Amino acid sequence: MKNTFGNNLSVTLFGESHGNAIGAILDGIAPGISVNQDNIAKMLEMRKGFSEISTPRREPDKFEILSGVFGGKTTGTPLCIVIKNEDTCSKDYSLTKDLARPSHADFTANQKYHGFEDYRGGGHFSGRITAPLVALGSIVLDALQKKGIYIGSHISKVGELEDRSFADFKTDLDQLKTKKIAVLDNEIGDKMIEKIKHAKQDGDSLGGVLETVVLGCPSGVGEPWFDSVESMLSHALFSVPAVKGVEFGAGFDFANMVGSVANDSFKTINGKIVTETNNSGGINGGITNGMPIVFKTAFRPTPTISKRQDTVNIKTKENAVIEAKGRHDPFIVHRAKVVVDSITAITIADMLITRFGTDWLGE
Amino acid sequence: MKNTFGNNLSVTLFGESHGNAIGAILDGIAPGISVNQDNIAKMLEMRKGFSEISTPRREPDKFEILSGVFGGKTTGTPLCIVIKNEDTCSKDYSLTKDLARPSHADFTANQKYHGFEDYRGGGHFSGRITAPLVALGSIVLDALQKKGIYIGSHISKVGELEDRSFADFKTDLDQLKTKKIAVLDNEIGDKMIEKIKHAKQDGDSLGGVLETVVLGCPSGVGEPWFDSVESMLSHALFSVPAVKGVEFGAGFDFANMVGSVANDSFKTINGKIVTETNNSGGINGGITNGMPIVFKTAFRPTPTISKRQDTVNIKTKENAVIEAKGRHDPFIVHRAKVVVDSITAITIADMLITRFGTDWLGE
Amino acid sequence: MKNTFGNNLSVTLFGESHGNAIGAILDGIAPGISVNQDNIAKMLEMRKGFSEISTPRREPDKFEILSGVFGGKTTGTPLCIVIKNEDTCSKDYSLTKDLARPSHADFTANQKYHGFEDYRGGGHFSGRITAPLVALGSIVLDALQKKGIYIGSHISKVGELEDRSFADFKTDLDQLKTKKIAVLDNEIGDKMIEKIKHAKQDGDSLGGVLETVVLGCPSGVGEPWFDSVESMLSHALFSVPAVKGVEFGAGFDFANMVGSVANDSFKTINGKIVTETNNSGGINGGITNGMPIVFKTAFRPTPTISKRQDTVNIKTKENAVIEAKGRHDPFIVHRAKVVVDSITAITIADMLITRFGTDWLGE
Amino acid sequence: MKNTFGNNLSVTLFGESHGNAIGAILDGIAPGISVNQDNIAKMLEMRKGFSEISTPRREPDKFEILSGVFGGKTTGTPLCIVIKNEDTCSKDYSLTKDLARPSHADFTANQKYHGFEDYRGGGHFSGRITAPLVALGSIVLDALQKKGIYIGSHISKVGELEDRSFADFKTDLDQLKTKKIAVLDNEIGDKMIEKIKHAKQDGDSLGGVLETVVLGCPSGVGEPWFDSVESMLSHALFSVPAVKGVEFGAGFDFANMVGSVANDSFKTINGKIVTETNNSGGINGGITNGMPIVFKTAFRPTPTISKRQDTVNIKTKENAVIEAKGRHDPFIVHRAKVVVDSITAITIADMLITRFGTDWLGE
Repeated sequence: MKNTFGNNLSVTLFGESHGNAIGAILDGIAPGISVNQDNIAKMLEMRKGFSEISTPRREPDKFEILSGVFGGKTTGTPLCIVIKNEDTCSKDYSLTKDLARPSHADFTANQKYHGFEDYRGGGHFSGRITAPLVALGSIVLDALQKKGIYIGSHISKVGELEDRSFADFKTDLDQLKTKKIAVLDNEIGDKMIEKIKHAKQDGDSLGGVLETVVLGCPSGVGEPWFDSVESMLSHALFSVPAVKGVEFGAGFDFANMVGSVANDSFKTINGKIVTETNNSGGINGGITNGMPIVFKTAFRPTPTISKRQDTVNIKTKENAVIEAKGRHDPFIVHRAKVVVDSITAITIADMLITRFGTDWLGE
Repeated sequence: MKNTFGNNLSVTLFGESHGNAIGAILDGIAPGISVNQDNIAKMLEMRKGFSEISTPRREPDKFEILSGVFGGKTTGTPLCIVIKNEDTCSKDYSLTKDLARPSHADFTANQKYHGFEDYRGGGHFSGRITAPLVALGSIVLDALQKKGIYIGSHISKVGELEDRSFADFKTDLDQLKTKKIAVLDNEIGDKMIEKIKHAKQDGDSLGGVLETVVLGCPSGVGEPWFDSVESMLSHALFSVPAVKGVEFGAGFDFANMVGSVANDSFKTINGKIVTETNNSGGINGGITNGMPIVFKTAFRPTPTISKRQDTVNIKTKENAVIEAKGRHDPFIVHRAKVVVDSITAITIADMLITRFGTDWLGE
Repeated sequence: MKNTFGNNLSVTLFGESHGNAIGAILDGIAPGISVNQDNIAKMLEMRKGFSEISTPRREPDKFEILSGVFGGKTTGTPLCIVIKNEDTCSKDYSLTKDLARPSHADFTANQKYHGFEDYRGGGHFSGRITAPLVALGSIVLDALQKKGIYIGSHISKVGELEDRSFADFKTDLDQLKTKKIAVLDNEIGDKMIEKIKHAKQDGDSLGGVLETVVLGCPSGVGEPWFDSVESMLSHALFSVPAVKGVEFGAGFDFANMVGSVANDSFKTINGKIVTETNNSGGINGGITNGMPIVFKTAFRPTPTISKRQDTVNIKTKENAVIEAKGRHDPFIVHRAKVVVDSITAITIADMLITRFGTDWLGE
Repeated sequence: MKNTFGNNLSVTLFGESHGNAIGAILDGIAPGISVNQDNIAKMLEMRKGFSEISTPRREPDKFEILSGVFGGKTTGTPLCIVIKNEDTCSKDYSLTKDLARPSHADFTANQKYHGFEDYRGGGHFSGRITAPLVALGSIVLDALQKKGIYIGSHISKVGELEDRSFADFKTDLDQLKTKKIAVLDNEIGDKMIEKIKHAKQDGDSLGGVLETVVLGCPSGVGEPWFDSVESMLSHALFSVPAVKGVEFGAGFDFANMVGSVANDSFKTINGKIVTETNNSGGINGGITNGMPIVFKTAFRPTPTISKRQDTVNIKTKENAVIEAKGRHDPFIVHRAKVVVDSITAITIADMLITRFGTDWLGE
């Protein structure tokens, strides 16, 4: 379905980085959910990152809700959010439009769209398209929170710098909301910022890993086989630009474990069946077990760097060199945090609505 | 869509481990594709693993094609393959049916299906359901090969044992077809077998990692955003029981890289644009770039072990202990290899059919 | 999705008229629903019609449930029903395989499948594929009935012969269950049988119209625009072979009305809002209004007749004549009745499950 | 999928009659298709009808393309068109918001959305939402025409007034483009206009029937069973507000025929296999046979009339009377013509893209 994802709650994306506007549609949301425009604005602000370590492109990101909200609440019909593009410097790109940036989508877009693609600023492939997605995510995150479901992420790793793991989930999630950079250990956060600044000075970029938790999701949600919680979440997560790895619970570390260590033994606490450990990341057989859903998402370093790189001219097929001059990010994991939170919220909400019906998320 | 996956080529699964039969349907396959029943039988044999390190359950796996094949070739209409269950020892399970096996789907199935699920041998959650999927995969793998697209996997890691990476893809893929255990370095393979035997003696199990390559896939296949090649493949891969991690190209290792190292610079060879390195795993912006598609899949240790484990009784919610007596596998990664190859083939074929039309895979 | 239909409750069809078997899968059915094999057998018997006016092909239609039922109840996982083909006289077809039967799918199948299609008895296009669909329909009809939702159809028209309309829906639906031919006015039924016998003697066939009612469906089900109740039902109904028209409520007769006559004015009875008339057929804006859902389905005369017809040889493109010698039906509307009831039940249940969640239909 | 329809070419709708804007997204369109803004404007003008027999609401319908077009051609990524609402007189509706208009969606919307729906002017149920759909349709119609596929409709019936059938399809289609009201027989057209004016004076409304033809569609397109051409088209058509009946070829008239008359015998003309008659409407077994696709769509009289009608107050459930004061249409079939052409074009293009691949419609 290309630019639409979700079974009973779906999101549709449109727009190009330097076109008229970008936008997103949320379809299947229950009627009567409060839409808090301040929260949307805050999420969009977080998505911009902060100037020291982010792109100098400063879009105001003034969003407009075109449909689906009436009297401050969702109507139940498609909710369309649009953000106009304003701070576009398309000249940056015209000169180098035939020089494919290594590891960027320039070349593959050309192979697929035969040169008709809007090449400016990555066009439809730009991370900028995630802005309206984040706006929708804000609405769904708020609605889930009223149902006792909390979602949040922190940067768990940039190179050799590793943040501590979640300890008390609820407290950690609350604290993450106010942080300049989403880490649990402030010292590590400062070191990460330093590291990113260095990369920026070098004209280079850095990758990293986000760890995300979904707290309070009931058990029995998801499906065996193709609509497993892992399948649905990974489908959504790998849609986010720069994501190249997803693991649930112990993930790749399971390869180092024996079953008797990997298994999460059950016990009963206050009449509720829980597990002693949570290596499964809250999911068994594709279905939630009531424990926190925990997963990690790996981001590649942003491909657009100002260092000199070898490339080819797509048209002439001649070898060439490229030094990107456009505004770009030395690091995007801190900005991607709200994108991952948003797409996670929408995907989890979709599975809950499938399970409990179209009114479930409403008030 | 629960038990159906794919846009224009879809697979549907049904059956329970100890029910009458298991089966799968392939819908959207081009007409005129040869169906080689020997190859299907060989793939099913590989899925069984070999007796030293696999479950003693020995199903003959006699498959029957119910529809969609006429005169030895696909008709273009749904192809249904069924395998009867014969060697079922359901008594193994009845005594312990209320004792949820840690990290197995017993508990989550109960939360979702309220006790109506067929609990015997994991029911619909059993890895056994992958047998008909592999049968379908064999047909698609053969058809892709005729189009110059080769798919294969090797066990890249079990604990501290790491197989070498792919060197010459085509040669390596050819050799993997005849191996007892799918590794490129035979010595490592022998050590893996020893390690698995030890785990078996301990009543324990082991996890591991598969590395898969798709060779010869044209560029320009896949979509930006939600139907990215990574999204589609990960969706399919996370459907396979025990998969808990998926990474493309450098994957989680991107977190340790700077962009100037991570980026795959372009060059022209014989008039074809290729990349110097392949950290991207053949995919940029969700779309194939013509390089080999490379990804890794992490498997958790099989949860069913004969070691004593703490659990609870689902009905009474009382604490209990469990020592699994059913027949089970100390290791499944070598068996999962053909499952991963199959689901990869079907997913790649789906995207190619979407791109080039319904007749594309035909002869 | 070709051979799969439904959002949250889906049905998948497979098989060919003269292949090994035909079958169908129901996915998304709630766990805990009783499966009454006698009722299934009765529905399959009704689908066969009766010998005076139906095909002499007499399949025993012994169905086998391969999966999804445990202890007589649905498990919640895919329910696969298979029926082996036994009474196949494929020789009937081999001689005339290149002679496309006028208005049959022979020619279009050839255009789509390039000659690889199983041409025997219509292959995958045969009405015979509806047998497993009816078996699934029986289960869903039973489950809906326990929720107070009743579905049934009668033959409202064959040529100049018109049955009376539904009067007391519940009484009429009850009576239709025991009728040899599904009409409300027995005298009209006798005349219809006579008319069909005459057509049979002539080597000809007849079309007709079914009227269907869904009683007891709650209001607020369905969607505006693309998943309107009319869209979903018509999608399903036009899948049934020979259906060429579908109308809801007054349907085509609306063209003869003014709005003040066509509109169904509201009134309150016992605190419930109902409408005075039901020209809308229970649906406004694509959503149920709580009144009976009423629609009509037009069937073309069965294209296979023994009368001499002009045709062409698909291979040589030479003009030819054809006199069908295979066993065929002079009339299928009385047989299609249970098919329409089944596909209606599955579609309505799908929309109810979407609305109220996956457990809704369970006990 | 609620507000999204289509497999490989999809359309998504959003907006409310009196909200900020209405819009639609086309996803899956090939890159490189010319976007003719004049043609879009012309189609939107036709959708407005003309003042004598249409609503006095006069929206300028200034559309804006937000994405998916670059340098005047489609990029291949989602094409979003938005139309701002300007001429909204929402006060018309506030007074009577609890008085459900008979046969309108007011009541069912309330049942589904629990009072959170935007009730003004029918909200998301308003026929106004078809404006951006028509804008997208214009682009697809132009692209199909370049491939030799022509689509058009005429009003075949309003009450006792019946237009002549298509004679020479191509000539008739060309003439329909310039007509004030889409009829083939101008005299009948004048009488229809008179009839509509009378209905308007009476404060009443009229229904009618459209006949549509798709000329030049190749054979072998569509699927057996659930994605039959009839299923896909009817699904789309019944999404259009006020549509209550759809029939293909002879449709409901098949009930009056014997098979030997109904069947379309084959013959060869210039090496091409065609049929003598076209009672099948160009479709057999769900698949196109190369003949013109012909179908009829029945429209109910617009439910909003100014005549006094009985209704209830949704909140108090008390009986009430309503005399609609808002601006409304006495007839919408002439306006719906371009809507039907548009949705037909998109649906046919979707099936062609499925068949021939994503680039097929491009230049």
